[in-house]
Amino acid sequence: MGECRKIHFSKVAIIGVGLIGGSLAISLKEKCLADEIIGVGRGLNNLEKAKELGVVDSFTYDIGEAVKEADLVVVAVPVVSSVEVIKVALKAMKKGAILTDVGSVKGSLIDEIDDNAVPDGVSVVWAHPIAGTEHSGVEAAFSGLFAGKICVITPTKNSSAVALEAVTFMWEALGSEVLLMDASTHDEILGAVSHLPHIAAFSLVNAIADLEEVRGDILKFSAGGFKDFTRIASSSPKMWRDICAMNSCAVLSVVEGFQKSLAKLKGQIENKDFDSLEADFLRAKELRDSLQDSSPREKAEGARK
Amino acid sequence: MGECRKIHFSKVAIIGVGLIGGSLAISLKEKCLADEIIGVGRGLNNLEKAKELGVVDSFTYDIGEAVKEADLVVVAVPVVSSVEVIKVALKAMKKGAILTDVGSVKGSLIDEIDDNAVPDGVSVVWAHPIAGTEHSGVEAAFSGLFAGKICVITPTKNSSAVALEAVTFMWEALGSEVLLMDASTHDEILGAVSHLPHIAAFSLVNAIADLEEVRGDILKFSAGGFKDFTRIASSSPKMWRDICAMNSCAVLSVVEGFQKSLAKLKGQIENKDFDSLEADFLRAKELRDSLQDSSPREKAEGARK
Repeated sequence: MGECRKIHFSKVAIIGVGLIGGSLAISLKEKCLADEIIGVGRGLNNLEKAKELGVVDSFTYDIGEAVKEADLVVVAVPVVSSVEVIKVALKAMKKGAILTDVGSVKGSLIDEIDDNAVPDGVSVVWAHPIAGTEHSGVEAAFSGLFAGKICVITPTKNSSAVALEAVTFMWEALGSEVLLMDASTHDEILGAVSHLPHIAAFSLVNAIADLEEVRGDILKFSAGGFKDFTRIASSSPKMWRDICAMNSCAVLSVVEGFQKSLAKLKGQIENKDFDSLEADFLRAKELRDSLQDSSPREKAEGARK
Repeated sequence: MGECRKIHFSKVAIIGVGLIGGSLAISLKEKCLADEIIGVGRGLNNLEKAKELGVVDSFTYDIGEAVKEADLVVVAVPVVSSVEVIKVALKAMKKGAILTDVGSVKGSLIDEIDDNAVPDGVSVVWAHPIAGTEHSGVEAAFSGLFAGKICVITPTKNSSAVALEAVTFMWEALGSEVLLMDASTHDEILGAVSHLPHIAAFSLVNAIADLEEVRGDILKFSAGGFKDFTRIASSSPKMWRDICAMNSCAVLSVVEGFQKSLAKLKGQIENKDFDSLEADFLRAKELRDSLQDSSPREKAEGARK
């Protein structure tokens, strides 16, 4: 129980008790990192379910009420709603308290907050646990979601050393590997490894939908590569709209890189330059194979099995 | 055991005893559709392993020797090698025998064979069981690979009614759903649902590889969407080179459709037309969601669990 001595929050307010917020609540309790957890949300059903499941001790619709006694406030609402929620929370927080988030885009969020919305005595530590499942809502939440995953932390001038250490320790105690990174690096990397694949999957499915409209005989054959490849196109259109809007610069840049890469393969097929084509396929295979079982996430998944 | 009465092969020659050829051999034995199975290949290790595992009763390197007594010859070598193998086999087959294949491209293959290489008295029934795993070789072969999958059969002038019925029944007896289709329809559909996703995955991985070369900090974050999305980029570069070469016309057409779809999403982000972007994401999600658990493959996978 060494962890309990190292850090402990008396009261944690979690704004947005979905998959991420809920899993964080469960994990904090399990690791005895928090005495009391209050959930904040807009949907009564989800909040009642969160209380019923023991994910939170209590809940409220009132952000100000929830955060005023909290020593840690976690904002886990969809990233596009974060700015307003964070502004409201910051105004009501007590001195010495820490606000953190879980948002998947950092630059535009931090730009909105960091220079004008942070009261003296309150610390902000921007964080992005890179974890999730295809499911959402508090009923999908579980302890261990963050074990073996990477959590990116983006320190800014509003991150006190004490707060930075506390949030870092919290994620490490939940089994995550914490990496410190500035906002633009975070957004460029996530644009490449997460946002781009989603856009590619959405556009691939739509290309097939276009064909299906003309032909009407394609979808029956959607077994194999197509279904595996496009699973992520089942993700929330609203969430991905928001991510594209908030990270448009990095997203456009990586989409352009993808267009070039695709055009190269197409040109090789057109020009019957199949040796180069095979060499490029091999390059992709070797990189993809090198990822097998090498990330902390894979290790954690292996350990859960 | 009604199946045993409906069709039965005394001797089956399987040329290419890998995942597909091996699984077919195992399944034919299990369903008592064949008395004797002879395997043909080039690699001694794989052939010895096939015999050791009971997948084949005997083996040879000599195609002519293997097929001369066979009433069914199955060509299950990589599709680019099929033409030469089929020509050799057809010359040595007895009257009344049937040749079939498992190739994933049909048009260019049939063009090479159908008009000049089929002796009188021999029937050819072109087939493509749409099945596979990420693994290859006879050790990956298993009974049930074809259960719940689609098998496309492409009848031509060389497919006698009796032969067509026999091959159709064989695949149905193994649990596949048989669909008859002309070669160009097959190649266009497979180009869309299988070849395009693979090309997209290869090119996406290469786009990330390009970025990694410049930045050096991307791959650590390859968890999540990227790994799921690019699993099929681990497929054989040689096989996909051959497929692109043999089905280049259909492949180029669907790649163009994909480029248009991708450019549309990119334009929406550039123009901040996020309502349209979300509508297109939703269109993709709805189509993708409609595929859940609806294909025979998924049903079969569910049944196996």
